[in-house]
Amino acid sequence: MDRTPFGRLARMYKAFSKNYKDLDKLDESTDVKDVSDTAPIYHSDQELVDKDWDWSGNIMDTLDELPAGIGQYDDFHTIDWLRDIARDRMRHRHIVKKRQEGLWEQIKSAHDAWSGWVCVFLVGLAAGTCAGFIDIGATWMSDLKEGVCLEAFWFNKEQCCWSAPTLNTSSWDEDEEGCPQWWSWSRIMGGSLSGAESYIIGYLFYVVWAVVFGLLAATLVRMFAPYACGSGVPEIKTILSGFIIRGYLGKWTLLIKSVGMMLSVSAGLSLGKEGPFVHVACCCGNIFSYLFPKYGRNEAKKREILSAAAAAGVSVAFGAPIGGVLFSLEEVSYYFPLKTLWRSFFCALIAAFILRSINPFGNDHLVMFSIDYNEPWSLLELVPFILIGALGGLFGKFFIKFNIMWCQYRKTSRLGNYPIFEVLGITFITALLSFPNPYTRMNSSELIRLLVSRCGPEDNIELCDYNRSHNLTDVFKYSALSGPMVSSAMWKLALALIFKMVITVFTFGIKVPAGLFIPSMAVGAIIGRIIGVGFEQLVVNNPSIVLFSGICESPGKCIVTPGLYAMVGAAAALGGVTRMTVSLVVIMFELTGGLEYIMPMMAAAMTSKWVGDALGREGIYDAHIALNGYPYLDSKEEFTHTTIAADVMRPR
Amino acid sequence: MDRTPFGRLARMYKAFSKNYKDLDKLDESTDVKDVSDTAPIYHSDQELVDKDWDWSGNIMDTLDELPAGIGQYDDFHTIDWLRDIARDRMRHRHIVKKRQEGLWEQIKSAHDAWSGWVCVFLVGLAAGTCAGFIDIGATWMSDLKEGVCLEAFWFNKEQCCWSAPTLNTSSWDEDEEGCPQWWSWSRIMGGSLSGAESYIIGYLFYVVWAVVFGLLAATLVRMFAPYACGSGVPEIKTILSGFIIRGYLGKWTLLIKSVGMMLSVSAGLSLGKEGPFVHVACCCGNIFSYLFPKYGRNEAKKREILSAAAAAGVSVAFGAPIGGVLFSLEEVSYYFPLKTLWRSFFCALIAAFILRSINPFGNDHLVMFSIDYNEPWSLLELVPFILIGALGGLFGKFFIKFNIMWCQYRKTSRLGNYPIFEVLGITFITALLSFPNPYTRMNSSELIRLLVSRCGPEDNIELCDYNRSHNLTDVFKYSALSGPMVSSAMWKLALALIFKMVITVFTFGIKVPAGLFIPSMAVGAIIGRIIGVGFEQLVVNNPSIVLFSGICESPGKCIVTPGLYAMVGAAAALGGVTRMTVSLVVIMFELTGGLEYIMPMMAAAMTSKWVGDALGREGIYDAHIALNGYPYLDSKEEFTHTTIAADVMRPR
Repeated sequence: MDRTPFGRLARMYKAFSKNYKDLDKLDESTDVKDVSDTAPIYHSDQELVDKDWDWSGNIMDTLDELPAGIGQYDDFHTIDWLRDIARDRMRHRHIVKKRQEGLWEQIKSAHDAWSGWVCVFLVGLAAGTCAGFIDIGATWMSDLKEGVCLEAFWFNKEQCCWSAPTLNTSSWDEDEEGCPQWWSWSRIMGGSLSGAESYIIGYLFYVVWAVVFGLLAATLVRMFAPYACGSGVPEIKTILSGFIIRGYLGKWTLLIKSVGMMLSVSAGLSLGKEGPFVHVACCCGNIFSYLFPKYGRNEAKKREILSAAAAAGVSVAFGAPIGGVLFSLEEVSYYFPLKTLWRSFFCALIAAFILRSINPFGNDHLVMFSIDYNEPWSLLELVPFILIGALGGLFGKFFIKFNIMWCQYRKTSRLGNYPIFEVLGITFITALLSFPNPYTRMNSSELIRLLVSRCGPEDNIELCDYNRSHNLTDVFKYSALSGPMVSSAMWKLALALIFKMVITVFTFGIKVPAGLFIPSMAVGAIIGRIIGVGFEQLVVNNPSIVLFSGICESPGKCIVTPGLYAMVGAAAALGGVTRMTVSLVVIMFELTGGLEYIMPMMAAAMTSKWVGDALGREGIYDAHIALNGYPYLDSKEEFTHTTIAADVMRPR
Repeated sequence: MDRTPFGRLARMYKAFSKNYKDLDKLDESTDVKDVSDTAPIYHSDQELVDKDWDWSGNIMDTLDELPAGIGQYDDFHTIDWLRDIARDRMRHRHIVKKRQEGLWEQIKSAHDAWSGWVCVFLVGLAAGTCAGFIDIGATWMSDLKEGVCLEAFWFNKEQCCWSAPTLNTSSWDEDEEGCPQWWSWSRIMGGSLSGAESYIIGYLFYVVWAVVFGLLAATLVRMFAPYACGSGVPEIKTILSGFIIRGYLGKWTLLIKSVGMMLSVSAGLSLGKEGPFVHVACCCGNIFSYLFPKYGRNEAKKREILSAAAAAGVSVAFGAPIGGVLFSLEEVSYYFPLKTLWRSFFCALIAAFILRSINPFGNDHLVMFSIDYNEPWSLLELVPFILIGALGGLFGKFFIKFNIMWCQYRKTSRLGNYPIFEVLGITFITALLSFPNPYTRMNSSELIRLLVSRCGPEDNIELCDYNRSHNLTDVFKYSALSGPMVSSAMWKLALALIFKMVITVFTFGIKVPAGLFIPSMAVGAIIGRIIGVGFEQLVVNNPSIVLFSGICESPGKCIVTPGLYAMVGAAAALGGVTRMTVSLVVIMFELTGGLEYIMPMMAAAMTSKWVGDALGREGIYDAHIALNGYPYLDSKEEFTHTTIAADVMRPR
């Protein structure tokens, strides 16, 4: 046997890739029992399950009518909720009974009562820490595509320029002169700082780094943890509904997903790290639940911890603890008693708190796309908001349709056999096409932040080129006629929109960790901003129309905030794709802090959901669950039988 | 028979007061069937139920094995969830089957499918409108205690002073000179504008108006709608769990509760209008559900509408639509499928929107206690926050205990026979004691708004008397040494705290519409502000202690915001009393807009709940349910049986 590191890698690769195909084949295999025989070697579950358990002897006495090995389900099997809950009740009864026997038993009983809280505390701690490290790594690697901080290579661009002696606020992200510490690749290569040569060198490095990161992410996933690919939310929904996928929430998946996320985000692919954060948090939940036999040895009880972990995942992804709890309740969880609500809340709190303490973005608050305006909106504006909502719903429907078609094609054609080449191809095309357009070159999160913000006095970017009369103090409060740069920005945004809509269809489903929240929100924000600017110019150009009198304080003083439209658009598109409602609005307003704009967002989210549901009831996660053939029974659906036997039988 | 109006009133009074006692006696009567025979005449339910129903003939054919009169439960009976849901399924099956028969049946089927949405839309509309009128009425009548707007008597003080020609921002609420339109009673009586005489006249009018309002509220409730008393939340919890209380959600209750709320709030009693808003919204829900036979004729389905209505109630009470949905989910609802979540969300949205359009407070946004600061808080401040949380939990526990003791005493002693005299007594004592102290004389909501706000440059009130050096631009950002006025304000606040804690125990339970949210929050806000100012002075006086280095940017530049402590205190006290968690935090941050302060509030809410639960698990609503002996089975509790038969049996 080859004992060199390479030989070990090769053996691991073989073992993993075997299991990797199993998941894809699941819907084809009729006898799922067979699959579980190819026991994967990389998960720690089995060892822990096999360990001796404190009370097992006693409980087995009471439960001797049940078969041995209870609670140790096979891979790809469904758990027996009632039996597991009954087993937990018996364990609890046993502990309560023993409590009279002395102080030690009382301590054990108290430990048992608190173990749920302790466990979610640890899960929150771990989820927050993981998220912090992933955020730091992803930012650093993303900036590596453009250049490097020569003084301290471990700084990202922002940190590098902080320590710049000639710091010149808000200009260092525009030109390089403001930040001499930051060396772009063209500067390192000795090229001049401007001109075609520098552009080509920059382009080249951008594409090469992107391809390297993409390749690395795909290889890591392929070799060490095939389960780390995708967003993970459909699988977690299935697991929470009572299915067993061994190793899906193991430590290897956790590690590779974390690293893979940094790489795939840095590669500039049209994907987000929000879905994967939920997966990472659930891995933490699974691992820590083994510290507490009450949860680790009981699959039904473990789901309570996993629900809380899912909440923590969204909490750290968006800095939205309450949105996380609602996401867990509305979207992923299956069995959600109120006790779980409180624990999820606590877990999400701890995770968000840890992330805030790590402070990966250096902005010291949780609100990710913080907005700085609170201008009123008028009733008439509900018309464009509802239009945006409808467009978001349409986008969601067609995105789901084409994405599922493409995934189906991948599964049935030979393309599925070359996942790494697929990733390489997508990364190359994405990098090649996104560099020339500034709105696609920048990070999706940055794009959203730009689109939802208002043009302030200090912004001299394209998007803010308005003909303002500069003698008024509150001039930036009111809408103004656009300059020529705004329409050029609109064209670029329209191109970015088409590019993002198309590429995301092909990206979601490739074998790297890939979330869907940020790309959908970016598409929606672009739609919203374009419509917002259009409506703004319509109002500004026709101030005398009586219909617009509610928007204008006085002639020439009209308030239309295109940033708000972008925010509404982001909510609408995300709603169309995922079909969330309440949790979506809560996440959106925790993200932006726009408490005043709860109505427009709610209106758009409801419209988006109605439009989407009218065309097809499935959200993207449900569609992927159906595509992969997971045994999932949606608790939201009512399985009403409208026919009785007499209707379908015929007299002989 | 006496046919004069007075005679009719007397008869109505007799009929109502009979039923009025029935509710109180419910726990004593063994045969609840008897109670329902005293059919109250004032509710519209029976007439509507007796009306012919479209499909009833057809359905009865299918369901002929079930007894006649199905779905028409008697008063004080529990509904049969399964039978009602099965009945709805059959109705649905029938409609789907008939759909093939033509266009008309298809329209009927579409109407049936949409009727849930239409119904919650109407409920939201009605709840928002009711809330708007109640808010306007309550503000006007509250100000009537102090004076009247002679130019236009229908204006409240704020509106009256808006039109003031010599408008002098923020000073007209301090002295009268700024607003000549507003005539205080002493001015009308010809007294001088200052001096002891004016004070005594003002005092007298204050007490007299309070007593008149209290008397009116109690009499109206006693005569026309005995069910309109109290907060209504315990009863609505019971109703939603499947109990029938006829007339509890009828149109008379709606009318009298609305008017009674205005009166009891105006009387200056230590109560809020938030719980009653839930009751009012549920009345709207019940009334509108009769327009749709799907809901009106099926008690189980009607609960779905009522859950949504409860959400709308909280939504209009606090301007917190999402908090409302969560309150409905966490606190009042029993059966809450995800479909109801979406409808509740929609209903709460519409209600909040209507209220915003009516704009009763004239401030054009929903955020009630809007805060204008977003200073960071440091980790060390978690210590006082957790202390505040613990105090809130303790307050909650003792409040519940003493309140229940007093209610028990009222039920068993002769006091219960004189509810109007009790209201008169409480109103008189409240008015007498609250006038001298400015912090109790002002409305509880105003007090909370004052306490959670920060001292800005324009505030020259007692609470903001700090020794600031006036040459810095951002001087109000940093904490400063307090002046002598602050400690006098602290003493007055301490007195107000004791007064409010004691009087609320006696107030909650008297026979007028009375909510508990605002008084609890006021108590908590006072506790929080006192601790906040204390901690602030501790830090400012000891800036050299190394422990405080996280709070201070540089020596002398420390940031402790006492308003934040008041906000945290409000959350903690409300949490201690009601034992809400997630919905509490959401309501609090929708109320204040303090998205940055989600962590401190969560920490305080969790501590408060843990401390409260350690001393006794029941929230105030559960305690009142138990006190009144309603048949309520808490879905949150796990009824684990830890003994088996063998444990309690002895061998013979």
